[in-house]
Amino acid sequence: MSRALTSSRDGHVYEFAPTMEPVYEAADGESLTIETIDSLNGAIQTDDDRLDAIPEEVNAATGPIAVEGASPGDVLAVEIEDVRVTEDRGRVLTAPGFGLLQDDPEIEHPATRITEVDAEGASEQIDFEGIDVPIEPVIGTIGVATAEGSVSTLTPDDHGGNLDTTDMTTGTTAYFPVFQEGAMLAMGDSKAAMADGEMCGTGAEIGTEIDVTLSVIEDPEISLDRPLVDTGDAVKTIASAETMEEAVELANRDVVRLLAHEHGFSRTEAYLFSSLVGGLEISQVVDPQVTARNAVPSEYLSVPY
Amino acid sequence: MSRALTSSRDGHVYEFAPTMEPVYEAADGESLTIETIDSLNGAIQTDDDRLDAIPEEVNAATGPIAVEGASPGDVLAVEIEDVRVTEDRGRVLTAPGFGLLQDDPEIEHPATRITEVDAEGASEQIDFEGIDVPIEPVIGTIGVATAEGSVSTLTPDDHGGNLDTTDMTTGTTAYFPVFQEGAMLAMGDSKAAMADGEMCGTGAEIGTEIDVTLSVIEDPEISLDRPLVDTGDAVKTIASAETMEEAVELANRDVVRLLAHEHGFSRTEAYLFSSLVGGLEISQVVDPQVTARNAVPSEYLSVPY
Repeated sequence: MSRALTSSRDGHVYEFAPTMEPVYEAADGESLTIETIDSLNGAIQTDDDRLDAIPEEVNAATGPIAVEGASPGDVLAVEIEDVRVTEDRGRVLTAPGFGLLQDDPEIEHPATRITEVDAEGASEQIDFEGIDVPIEPVIGTIGVATAEGSVSTLTPDDHGGNLDTTDMTTGTTAYFPVFQEGAMLAMGDSKAAMADGEMCGTGAEIGTEIDVTLSVIEDPEISLDRPLVDTGDAVKTIASAETMEEAVELANRDVVRLLAHEHGFSRTEAYLFSSLVGGLEISQVVDPQVTARNAVPSEYLSVPY
Repeated sequence: MSRALTSSRDGHVYEFAPTMEPVYEAADGESLTIETIDSLNGAIQTDDDRLDAIPEEVNAATGPIAVEGASPGDVLAVEIEDVRVTEDRGRVLTAPGFGLLQDDPEIEHPATRITEVDAEGASEQIDFEGIDVPIEPVIGTIGVATAEGSVSTLTPDDHGGNLDTTDMTTGTTAYFPVFQEGAMLAMGDSKAAMADGEMCGTGAEIGTEIDVTLSVIEDPEISLDRPLVDTGDAVKTIASAETMEEAVELANRDVVRLLAHEHGFSRTEAYLFSSLVGGLEISQVVDPQVTARNAVPSEYLSVPY
């Protein structure tokens, strides 16, 4: 099957909602390439381009893509085969009222630094003020139609959305709950590099081409309430909430459920075991909801799909 | 110099305070071995031994050890050369009113599982209900005399204390602010294994022998407000606070300061750069204050001492 290309020109969204109009209909098992633009729609091209406020429309997510046969209660598997940057520069920036240290009087809001892509043979890097940083792309926003209510592409929740999770990259398979017919997958807001936490509010925002294969898991043996990733090294639950305390509690509850299912543990045993291996991780602390993960090394947990 | 041995029998504390009576006086640069007992003083030896409440005295920290020449404003470097378990079993457990999922009606509080040490040739493991988990020891409580006020060994703060940080292990050098003459180092509460987060409230609690070398950095070129670790792969600031949001903010502020110092960055540039590499990590979410880290890979940040 030839690989279809879907770009933000075909269609993109600024919110995930229960009802979404697909720009492409993929077969179950189809491989395609999705083009994404940078989170700020190309508005920031030099250090002098500054962001006075977070725009109403941010994190354009290419799609949505309907996947044949996906129905509420199913699970959508998104195998991320490759993420390639498609611009010669990224941009990392602050904006007023945004970011972990937004109230620090010695940090400028707004401020921008362009990070030029510096291709050296096989390994690509970006340049931050003379320091090379390897390109390790991250898909910042990725999700499906919501169960109810519209959610901006600036906000993460159970449908995915602005998860800003460094594991959302080449080699990972991401799993999403299907809330609506066709699932309605959309993604964008890629970064050339990003720290766990995304403290200043951005990574090095950049356009990308993303190769994925989409599969529907019908009638899963264990239901999925929130996103889940398999990085090859670890299985990680992902949860978003108003506070980090709430997010880690959700992520741990999901891991306890998966460990109990896999090993035949009681909930008590699964909880005790979860406190011995892998552990809690931070995705981001700057969006309207924060996002955390609970990682379990692959030797102790597999994805039940 | 022969290596002195200090054990909990020589003396141990259940609080870090401004005034502490040393059980041993070490020379600057001295190497010694510190014996620690498990956090629950041997009270839990079988699955039937359960903890109805967190005891008043918990996390016995062997020491304090006065280090010659350490004065307020200096930095104490603790090179952790080896951590060896000294018991044939650890114990992982829940207790009422403690732990991330303490209100979950399907999780038993209290509950205990003994994790037997299973020595197989060179690699040691513990056994959790038939599953092998490699022994990767963690020193749960480690700190120095406080600037002011007494702090229980159950609580982490700027002096260290119950940091429950997985990086506090073989190969790491930990740095602490010196608040009082002699620094007054004490440590205990080791685990044979622990997840980042320590969700159920414990790792596999166990007695250990810890080889350290202690050095005083006088008049440091950049002051140290809170603990810092160098794992060999990364430099990580460590901060404790009432909420995770406050803890990650402190940890990020400390990293911004170190990055600005190392690279000659403005505070704005250091903040932007901190959002591209390494990132925020979780130490624990269950103690009276929670603890977070901000990691920067060693290629971008060195310890300025």
